Amino acid sequence: MVFLKGNFIKKDKAFISVMDRGFLFGDGVYEVVPVYNRKLFKPIEHLDRLQQSLNVVSINNPYNEKEWLDIMNKVVYYSDNDDQSIYLQVTRGSDTKRVHTYENLEPNVYVESNELKTRSQKELSKGYSAITMKDIRWDLCNVKSTSLLANVIYSQEAKKVNAEEAILHKDNVITEGSTSNVFLIKNGVLFTHPTGSKILPGITREVVLESAKSVNIIVKEEAYMLDDIYDCDEVWISSSTRGIIPITKIDDKSLNNGLVGELWEGVYENYLENIKLLKS
Amino acid sequence: MVFLKGNFIKKDKAFISVMDRGFLFGDGVYEVVPVYNRKLFKPIEHLDRLQQSLNVVSINNPYNEKEWLDIMNKVVYYSDNDDQSIYLQVTRGSDTKRVHTYENLEPNVYVESNELKTRSQKELSKGYSAITMKDIRWDLCNVKSTSLLANVIYSQEAKKVNAEEAILHKDNVITEGSTSNVFLIKNGVLFTHPTGSKILPGITREVVLESAKSVNIIVKEEAYMLDDIYDCDEVWISSSTRGIIPITKIDDKSLNNGLVGELWEGVYENYLENIKLLKS
Repeated sequence: MVFLKGNFIKKDKAFISVMDRGFLFGDGVYEVVPVYNRKLFKPIEHLDRLQQSLNVVSINNPYNEKEWLDIMNKVVYYSDNDDQSIYLQVTRGSDTKRVHTYENLEPNVYVESNELKTRSQKELSKGYSAITMKDIRWDLCNVKSTSLLANVIYSQEAKKVNAEEAILHKDNVITEGSTSNVFLIKNGVLFTHPTGSKILPGITREVVLESAKSVNIIVKEEAYMLDDIYDCDEVWISSSTRGIIPITKIDDKSLNNGLVGELWEGVYENYLENIKLLKS
Repeated sequence: MVFLKGNFIKKDKAFISVMDRGFLFGDGVYEVVPVYNRKLFKPIEHLDRLQQSLNVVSINNPYNEKEWLDIMNKVVYYSDNDDQSIYLQVTRGSDTKRVHTYENLEPNVYVESNELKTRSQKELSKGYSAITMKDIRWDLCNVKSTSLLANVIYSQEAKKVNAEEAILHKDNVITEGSTSNVFLIKNGVLFTHPTGSKILPGITREVVLESAKSVNIIVKEEAYMLDDIYDCDEVWISSSTRGIIPITKIDDKSLNNGLVGELWEGVYENYLENIKLLKS
């Protein structure tokens, strides 16, 4: 069962008017909230970020926190899976005509659940590959907008070469991944792009930074140059649905002799503790 | 009547699956073709540009030229209006799951007609105002993509102050309008941003350039600096549905003492001849 415009219905019956501004203009924002053992992971943080996205693009939030939690928990309940990823999307609404400008519209809300397949630590420990690509996205990457065509292009390019992620760079600075934040470790120091309009302020990014600090890694939210990426001791990416993934090959060049670095494990296990609190 | 996924149906019955990638990712491209006296204006040029957009984002064109013309002409036929604007949108298709990457999908096509209200020359001769805004869009502005959230923001900002258009600038260079191309006239020379990835190659832009040359205006497809815009003798914007509109006020500063410049009229009348060929 999915939630669409106030109703819980079957996904194959979920249709939206062609006048929806998400369909016509990519005029919407979204969130993806992981669920472990049928419990939402950091839902308030996700709802706070949703509110920030809505604020920037001036879409009214149709629900308060309690209403959102109710909707998400019902979608969780209707699913057969214990571990899920909840996708929620708010578009500006449906108008009678296609015009770029808008008056007061009632936002359209869509919420669905998908099975969340988490990878085992053993599987992750083998490492993954990434490619680097020029960051051609717009200047408001802090907004989790559904105008995602650039991200689609990146993800497909990564898929073509069987890479886990496309890591983006703008003016020679690493920004983030196509659907993740990026962490670069050199001589025991963790670098990641500071928050602001050039990256999405990832919820799992915060978990990574806290976990890193808790195991005494020095964290620097500073620019890291593309030219230096191949000399990193470790590179990780993080996202709500994928957790913290170690990258051991970038653009066909091996990092750390192709082995997952020693710092990843401690941070990953700290992150796992966060999740296990829900799983227990 | 609109055209959706192979069928001509009433607009209020036109619904699309929430799994459409246009709805979820802004993963589509579009065109707007003007119709005068029930005849499509430069449809081949629009279909060529559609193909270029589709090529860049790797979406298969579901129809050949003849099929597109048939569909558009039927939509024109079903409308009550003699002057129309035909909107056509191709999204990558509907998948069973929301994932950024894609396999082979059947594109979803939506086509509708709206009344095209053209402004009289007398009305245009009063001039219009524009605002300038920083160009925050992505780097593939030559693609007429439905990931339009930036353009929505611009159009709304212009509407708030009752302006006709938001004129965009990147690194102090005028690129284009939020839904138009921009022309800057100084000392009898017309400047406009060269084609490439920073602007949409407007069909009406080409008409303007040809019209300008035909009345012996020197045309330079070169960068024009934002700092110099207030000293222009004339500024025009062009789009398929709005034609060529003279701007006489930018950011509350009057151009040419608030009067439409003398070169606009000749170019506009040349453009009108193009349209009148259809109207006669």
